[in-house]
Amino acid sequence: MQFVIIGGDAAGMSAASRARRNLKDLKIIVLEKTFDVSYSACGMPYNIADPDRGIDDLVVREAHIFREKQGIDLRTGYCVEKIEPKEKVVIGHDPNGKEFIIPYDKLLIATGATAIVPNIPGFNSDRILKLKNLADGRKIKRYMKENDVRQAVIVGMGYIALEMCEALQKRGIQVSMIKPRSVFLPGFNAELSKIVKDEVSRHDVNIHLGQNIERIESIGDAAFRIICEKAIFDCQMVLVAAGIMPNSALAADAGLDLGPKESIAVGKDLLTSDANIFSAGDCSDAYHIVTGEKTWNPLALWANRAGYAVADNLAGKGIRLDGVAGTAVFKVFDLQVARTGLNKQEALDNGFDPVEVVIKSRTKAHAHPGSDAIYVHMIGDRKTGRILGTQMVGYDGAAHRINSVAVALHQKMTVQSYSQCDMAYSPPFGPVWDPTLTAANQLLKKL
Amino acid sequence: MQFVIIGGDAAGMSAASRARRNLKDLKIIVLEKTFDVSYSACGMPYNIADPDRGIDDLVVREAHIFREKQGIDLRTGYCVEKIEPKEKVVIGHDPNGKEFIIPYDKLLIATGATAIVPNIPGFNSDRILKLKNLADGRKIKRYMKENDVRQAVIVGMGYIALEMCEALQKRGIQVSMIKPRSVFLPGFNAELSKIVKDEVSRHDVNIHLGQNIERIESIGDAAFRIICEKAIFDCQMVLVAAGIMPNSALAADAGLDLGPKESIAVGKDLLTSDANIFSAGDCSDAYHIVTGEKTWNPLALWANRAGYAVADNLAGKGIRLDGVAGTAVFKVFDLQVARTGLNKQEALDNGFDPVEVVIKSRTKAHAHPGSDAIYVHMIGDRKTGRILGTQMVGYDGAAHRINSVAVALHQKMTVQSYSQCDMAYSPPFGPVWDPTLTAANQLLKKL
Repeated sequence: MQFVIIGGDAAGMSAASRARRNLKDLKIIVLEKTFDVSYSACGMPYNIADPDRGIDDLVVREAHIFREKQGIDLRTGYCVEKIEPKEKVVIGHDPNGKEFIIPYDKLLIATGATAIVPNIPGFNSDRILKLKNLADGRKIKRYMKENDVRQAVIVGMGYIALEMCEALQKRGIQVSMIKPRSVFLPGFNAELSKIVKDEVSRHDVNIHLGQNIERIESIGDAAFRIICEKAIFDCQMVLVAAGIMPNSALAADAGLDLGPKESIAVGKDLLTSDANIFSAGDCSDAYHIVTGEKTWNPLALWANRAGYAVADNLAGKGIRLDGVAGTAVFKVFDLQVARTGLNKQEALDNGFDPVEVVIKSRTKAHAHPGSDAIYVHMIGDRKTGRILGTQMVGYDGAAHRINSVAVALHQKMTVQSYSQCDMAYSPPFGPVWDPTLTAANQLLKKL
Repeated sequence: MQFVIIGGDAAGMSAASRARRNLKDLKIIVLEKTFDVSYSACGMPYNIADPDRGIDDLVVREAHIFREKQGIDLRTGYCVEKIEPKEKVVIGHDPNGKEFIIPYDKLLIATGATAIVPNIPGFNSDRILKLKNLADGRKIKRYMKENDVRQAVIVGMGYIALEMCEALQKRGIQVSMIKPRSVFLPGFNAELSKIVKDEVSRHDVNIHLGQNIERIESIGDAAFRIICEKAIFDCQMVLVAAGIMPNSALAADAGLDLGPKESIAVGKDLLTSDANIFSAGDCSDAYHIVTGEKTWNPLALWANRAGYAVADNLAGKGIRLDGVAGTAVFKVFDLQVARTGLNKQEALDNGFDPVEVVIKSRTKAHAHPGSDAIYVHMIGDRKTGRILGTQMVGYDGAAHRINSVAVALHQKMTVQSYSQCDMAYSPPFGPVWDPTLTAANQLLKKL
C-alpha cells in the first residue's frame, strides 16, 4: 500500500511517523513544498526575540532522520498542484521544475494554513513580513540583522501579533500595533481584554484600534509609510499578523467537501468526503465538543492528535476523535491569557442561555509573598447548568488551570459538579480555593 | 435557633460566616480553645522562613471582625471538655477557669487535628517543637529568635517536615531529617520519590531513613542529643513532624460513630451519627470519590468546603458533598510534588487491577529556553480503563496540572477519554502534549 502525505509539518509528520510504527511495510511518501519539516512553529516569536539563537533551533527532527531511521520517503521542495481522486494520483512539480505524478492508495492532505495578507495597496510585497512557516521566521531574522529596525508596525492583534510585539519590544524596537476593528481582543470578555491591553500598553507598545489602512508606501530601502484614514506611521519593518486561512484550494479543486472558514471537512475518523483521502491539521475542520457542531481550530495539539489518528485509522484501529474545546493560551509580557470552550456570543449563537461571572483571585495564598492577580471569566448555561466556557488572565497559573475546565467541558460537567472538585492547595501555588472553583461558586449563585 | 461551633479555624469559621449570610437571625457561638482564629496554617513554614515577617501576617480575618461585622459570638480561650447529646449542651472551662454549660440546637464539631508526638523518652517536653496551630508557629519563631540554632533535627518526612526543612535551610540552619521507616515518601511511586529525595539532598539536608530513635536528652539550655539505635545527633532545635491525628475524643466520648483513623464519621450532608451534630474539617472523615469508601483527608480545601456545606444544610439547602480525591501538592525547594487519587497499593487494596506508567516530559516546549524536567506517574484500572490516580514531580507546572486529573477522577473518566482532552499549548508553558496527556497516551498502550 502506498500512503502519500501532502505537507510535512505537525499533522503530516506525526501521521508519517506513527504510520511507520504501525505498519512496517507501508510505502510512505511525504511531499513538502518548502524545505523545512517538523519544526515548532509556535516557538518562532520566542526565537526571534533572541538574536543569538538560530531559527533552526526550532527543528524537532531533521529530514534525514525521517528518511534514514524511519524509511519515510520525504521529498522537500515538492509542490502538489492537483489531486485526481478518481485516478488516485497527485500531480505537481519537483524542486527542479519537473512535473511529477504520484499514485496513492491512501492520501493525507496536511497542507496547513496561510497568513492572510490584506488586499490593500502595498501589502503584496516581498518586503512586508509575515510569520507562518519557518521560511517566514528565517526571513524576519535576516531582515532584522540586515536592517536598522527602530520602529516596527504590526498589522493585526491576534495572539501571533501579541507574541511578536513582545519579541520585537525585547529587541529594543518601538512597536505600534494597528487594526481596523475597534475591539482589542474580539471574543474575549471586555474586562479581561482590558487587562491584556493595559499590560501591552504598560510596555510602551502603541495600540491603534479602528485604523483603516489605505496603503503602504516604500519610502526607502527598508523604510515604510503606512497611510491610514486618520494617521500616518513611518517605520523600518512591517509585519502582517491579521489571521490565517486554511490551505484548502487543492481539496476544493478535487471536489472535496469544505467546512467552516473553507477548511476541509472531515469526520471523527479524519476522512474527507472521499473514502481514500484523509485530512488533518490546520487545513481541516473538527467537531466542537461543547456545541457538537463543526469548527475550525488551527492549533498544534489538534494537528498532532489528528495526524496520529489518521495513521491509526490507516492501520484499522478505528479511532474516532471527540473533537476540540477551543482550548488555547498565549503569553504576552508577564501575562498568561487562556481560554477554553465558548465565549458569550458563541454560546448565544448556539442556542444556549449563557450566564457569566468574572472573578478576581490571587496567584498565591493569603499573605504569601509575591502574590499577583488572576482573573477568571466563566460562562454557564441557565437551562442545563453546564459549564460552556472559561477565559483566564493572570500573571501566573492561567496556562495550566485552563485545562481543568477543558476536561470538564469534555465531560459536559455542570457548574455544580465542577464546584465540588477536589483540587490541590499549597500557599506558593494559589489560594485555598482554586480560582476556577471560586468562579464556579460565584456562577452557581447566578444560575 | 442556637448554632454552637467547637473550633474556630478553617471549617468552624467558614461555617460561622456562611451561616450568618444564610440566616440573619441565627444565634452563632464559636468556642475556640486557643486565642487564634481564621489563619492560614499552611502558610506557617513560609512565614517561619522569613525572620522579618510576624506570624500574625497569616491571620485572614481578625476575631473582632467576626464579632462586630458579622455578629458572631466568638469566644477564644473557651475549651470544651464534654458534649451531652441528650441534653444538647456543651460543657467546658472559659479562660478564667470558670465552667460553662452552653446549650445548642445544632452543633458543629470542628476541632481539627493534633500533631502526633512519639511516645519516646524526651519527646514529651515543652522544648520539643511541633507545627500544627498558630501558637506552635509563634513558639518556633520565638525559639529561633532567642536561641542560636545552627543545627536542627526534624523527626518525620511528610510534607510539613519537608516544607519546614526548606524553611530552616533558608535561615542558614543545617537540617537533619530522621525517621524510623526506610521509605522516603511512602505512598509515592519510587521513581518520583527518588527525585524528591535527590532534590532535598542537593540542598545539603541530611536524610536519615530507618533510624529508630531511643531517646532525646537535653544537654544544655537549647541543646539536644538525639540517641538513635545506630547514630547520635546533636542539635539546638528539634521539630516533630511525624504526622497528625484527628481531635475526635470529644465526639467519641459523646458516643458518636468514628471513621478511618478514628476521625468523626459524617455523611455527605456532614451530619454525624447524631442528627443535631455536624462535623467538618480535619477532625472528620469524607468519602473518597474513586473508591466510594470512607477516608480521612485533613486538608484545607475540604475543611473550608465542608464548613460551608454545614452552614448551607443548616439553612435547609440540602447540600451533599461528593467527597475528596486526595488531591494535594507541596513545594520542596525548587520542586512541585503533587498527587491525586489512589496510589498503586491503595488501588490494589480497593480491588482494582492497577496498571502504571512513569513518563518524563518537559516544562517548556522543544528548544524553549529554561526548560526543565517534569515526571508523571499515572495509574489506570485494567478492568474498566478508568484513571485511578496520578502523581507528579516537576520544577514547574505540577501544582496546577494535577487538577486536570482530579476533575477526571471526579468524572470517573477512562484513560482513553482523558487522552482526547483538548488542552492549552504555548511554548513557554509546556510541550504540545501536556505531560498528563503523554502519560495517558503511554498508559493507554499498556491497558
